[in-house]
Amino acid sequence: MQIITSVSEMQHYSDKIRINGNKIAVVPTMGYLHEGHLSLIRLAKQHCDVVITTIFVNPAQFSPEEDFEKYPRDLNRDISMCTSAGCDVVFAPDVAAMYNHNFLTFVSVDNISNKLEGTFRPSHFKGVTTVVAKLFNITKPHVAVFGQKDAQQTAVIKKMVKDLNFDIQIIVAPTVREPDGLALSSRNIYLTNGERKDASVLYKSLKLAEEEINNGENSVEIIKTKMIDLILSKPNFIIDYISFNDADTLEELGTIAGTPVLVSLAARIGKVRLIDNLVIKK
Amino acid sequence: MQIITSVSEMQHYSDKIRINGNKIAVVPTMGYLHEGHLSLIRLAKQHCDVVITTIFVNPAQFSPEEDFEKYPRDLNRDISMCTSAGCDVVFAPDVAAMYNHNFLTFVSVDNISNKLEGTFRPSHFKGVTTVVAKLFNITKPHVAVFGQKDAQQTAVIKKMVKDLNFDIQIIVAPTVREPDGLALSSRNIYLTNGERKDASVLYKSLKLAEEEINNGENSVEIIKTKMIDLILSKPNFIIDYISFNDADTLEELGTIAGTPVLVSLAARIGKVRLIDNLVIKK
Repeated sequence: MQIITSVSEMQHYSDKIRINGNKIAVVPTMGYLHEGHLSLIRLAKQHCDVVITTIFVNPAQFSPEEDFEKYPRDLNRDISMCTSAGCDVVFAPDVAAMYNHNFLTFVSVDNISNKLEGTFRPSHFKGVTTVVAKLFNITKPHVAVFGQKDAQQTAVIKKMVKDLNFDIQIIVAPTVREPDGLALSSRNIYLTNGERKDASVLYKSLKLAEEEINNGENSVEIIKTKMIDLILSKPNFIIDYISFNDADTLEELGTIAGTPVLVSLAARIGKVRLIDNLVIKK
Repeated sequence: MQIITSVSEMQHYSDKIRINGNKIAVVPTMGYLHEGHLSLIRLAKQHCDVVITTIFVNPAQFSPEEDFEKYPRDLNRDISMCTSAGCDVVFAPDVAAMYNHNFLTFVSVDNISNKLEGTFRPSHFKGVTTVVAKLFNITKPHVAVFGQKDAQQTAVIKKMVKDLNFDIQIIVAPTVREPDGLALSSRNIYLTNGERKDASVLYKSLKLAEEEINNGENSVEIIKTKMIDLILSKPNFIIDYISFNDADTLEELGTIAGTPVLVSLAARIGKVRLIDNLVIKK
């Protein structure tokens, strides 16, 4: 497996792959990889000849009070995990390679960036779409694979790809979970043992919503109340939001009229903020 | 010469050119071509195997009170001019092909988009950078050629290309002028005979600035006053701005400390708004 840190070297590498008629998949990550990321790499490998995993903790998607500096990093561990998952290239630039001294250009997706996570992290998705556009131009992929765990991110990126005519197929891979249902996340290592145990209640609340919908409950208000009761049965949880949305447009739903429905939530336990979601189909 | 109107067909065409190892140049235009555009096509042909001219009057760069509806269009004439200039493909999509019903994504370049033309046309460059990013993703060029006539546009696009890592070389071609110095523009057809005659004063004022700088005058205020006096010697002119800027950063200059200096102006005569500029080197 090859490790590339220079933008122009990465572009040159991808040009060569493409001119040979081979297909490139990119898996954009912020590193500190877990089994969820590896599942994306393996899925990418099924679709393409060459898989590039990008590892870059993107400052533009953190607000000043967020955990950019403290975000966990371990490039050597990431590289050996990428190798074992069948990745061909790790692209791991430093911040100076990605953001020049006088960086001024941003890609933004209106409306769907401002809901859900966007309410709590106002410039987050502008940072995400900007860096993903850059990574697309640097890695020149045919296919890009993202995890369903970041449901809103995938919706925002799909919209960017469509609107800006990126000739890239977006594949969304299912969320990988711990045996008790907790979605894998690089931030899970921040959890204390007790918090880690309680954190599984988030997935349980999503499964409760699924059960309610499957039983014919169509009031979002009623389902939400049951989810809140379940989550708050664990001490120390603060719920940022629980939301029921159209899975594509992210339009908020008050009533379950049809499916699929994206049920998503964000909650804080101690110093850790966790997100999770489930796309519910009848 | 081939005419393509579909986005996916254009992308497929460019993929084939690239996989054969050939180089693509794009010349983005709003059509109603003149000798200035043709000079860009000829220059593009010197750098690449295949030249794609895009012809698209982009609604996103016009404000509601501007001349989008009335902007001159003549696709058949444009096509025959492209053919004669050695263009290989005209990409001429309609508005629906470029902007889907629920278009939400924009590319913006802060700071340098807000000066000069940006003061008078606040969302203009956001429309330009968005459509140019789209056209880059659709035509997949190695090289893109723009005219110096739109000096700020070229600065904004160069910055976008650098910041978003588009792997595209930007070539800026010199402004083509009428014998009396008036810069060619699709909007010149709006001028009455008298206005057309007077309009050459704009270039004369730029040449006056050049002469002043070459004679050692370093006060922008003094040079500007002389330019204003010259322009307003013609009746009916309204000057939107005359500005002296660093040619790359567009930082405004109060004193001529060194060259090159971008001197640019916009003025209205009757119902027509004209822009022009000169990069002055000692």
